[in-house]
Amino acid sequence: MIIGLTQMLKDDFGIDFKNTALLDEAFTHASYVNEHPREKLKYYERIEFLGDAVMQLCVSEYLFKRYPTLPEGKLSRLRAAMVCEDSFSKFAKECHFDEYIRLGKGEEKANARNRASLLCDIFEAFIGALYLDQGKAVVVSFISRVVFPKLDLGWFDHYLDHKTELQELLQQHGDCKITYVKVAENGPDNEKEYTMAVYADGQKIGEGKGMSKKAAEQQAAFQALKALQKN
Amino acid sequence: MIIGLTQMLKDDFGIDFKNTALLDEAFTHASYVNEHPREKLKYYERIEFLGDAVMQLCVSEYLFKRYPTLPEGKLSRLRAAMVCEDSFSKFAKECHFDEYIRLGKGEEKANARNRASLLCDIFEAFIGALYLDQGKAVVVSFISRVVFPKLDLGWFDHYLDHKTELQELLQQHGDCKITYVKVAENGPDNEKEYTMAVYADGQKIGEGKGMSKKAAEQQAAFQALKALQKN
Repeated sequence: MIIGLTQMLKDDFGIDFKNTALLDEAFTHASYVNEHPREKLKYYERIEFLGDAVMQLCVSEYLFKRYPTLPEGKLSRLRAAMVCEDSFSKFAKECHFDEYIRLGKGEEKANARNRASLLCDIFEAFIGALYLDQGKAVVVSFISRVVFPKLDLGWFDHYLDHKTELQELLQQHGDCKITYVKVAENGPDNEKEYTMAVYADGQKIGEGKGMSKKAAEQQAAFQALKALQKN
Repeated sequence: MIIGLTQMLKDDFGIDFKNTALLDEAFTHASYVNEHPREKLKYYERIEFLGDAVMQLCVSEYLFKRYPTLPEGKLSRLRAAMVCEDSFSKFAKECHFDEYIRLGKGEEKANARNRASLLCDIFEAFIGALYLDQGKAVVVSFISRVVFPKLDLGWFDHYLDHKTELQELLQQHGDCKITYVKVAENGPDNEKEYTMAVYADGQKIGEGKGMSKKAAEQQAAFQALKALQKN
């Protein structure tokens, strides 16, 4: 058993693994298995195969429901931005998964522990193990904490431009004047929070907060889109 | 509502759709929406985005569990063979989905109804609608009937060579003599069924049936692999 891993998952994420052999599999690299032939260990690749598909579905379903009018092309671009090596390696690091990987000596020396591709694999493998051990609802709850909040933090904003989408929606049947107005600016200089409102032909249709004016405008546009879709 | 579709799903698959609007969305092409602007219809692309991910997970999970020792590379190749335009368009046709697609006149003339890419899209969109309306268990039950049996029919055998896998497993720790022996040959000439047994160093380890000797040998190897994995 990998020392400390089950305890960390319990302490940090409230996850109580039943079958810890799945966890061992998810955190074990082929190089470690090769160095310990007598232990008949499994390495993470099969379980990563499953975890990859679990992530695809959970992220797809979340995006599909969160953005009920976003066209397929934008959903796909956003999913590709979230389900990728760059994002997953960051999530793995944030969860301290790097500290628990079982590596062979050669790979350890080659600093594989900090390699983005390996961290990404381990994150997917962990998701596969979590899915098998605890089911989809627990996976969704885990990624609701680790992955989805990054949308609100603006990690993927360059893939999703709410302001452009709002403009397209409002101007599809003719002209409409859209303006963004600063409502508030709070906090110290290095931790400023802006509140921006968006107006369509002089009528307020949304408000949002952010760490920059631009981020707050995107949030305001997003809130306006949500409100318009309800009508 | 698309005439006959809900009834067909009830009669042929025992599926009782609650929200038939999802079905309409899944079977409606953008060209039809464009020709009927007043009806404010949705076309299938968003729901297909979801259905694609649902298929990925359901097929991955099935393969992961059915082949507990198959390495990741083979699992991925097999999944790619199953989750692809060629397979999905055949499944769509087999389910008569082509008869229910709502197309614009131009696309109808261009014979889009029989285009593999469109049939594939519709199959994925249907899976997305089924998932939203009935949940994953019903999707699994549907594809257990439409998709998974194709594995046993040998549709994907060229992606999965059980005989080679058995040989690799048996000979990993040294030499082992593997032989295939015909046990039976039944039925008329045009519908022959062969039964083949596989022996390892003279001991029988598996038996399988098939429409050809080769298919029966693959089945025998597959059964031997299953039995060996249990030990």
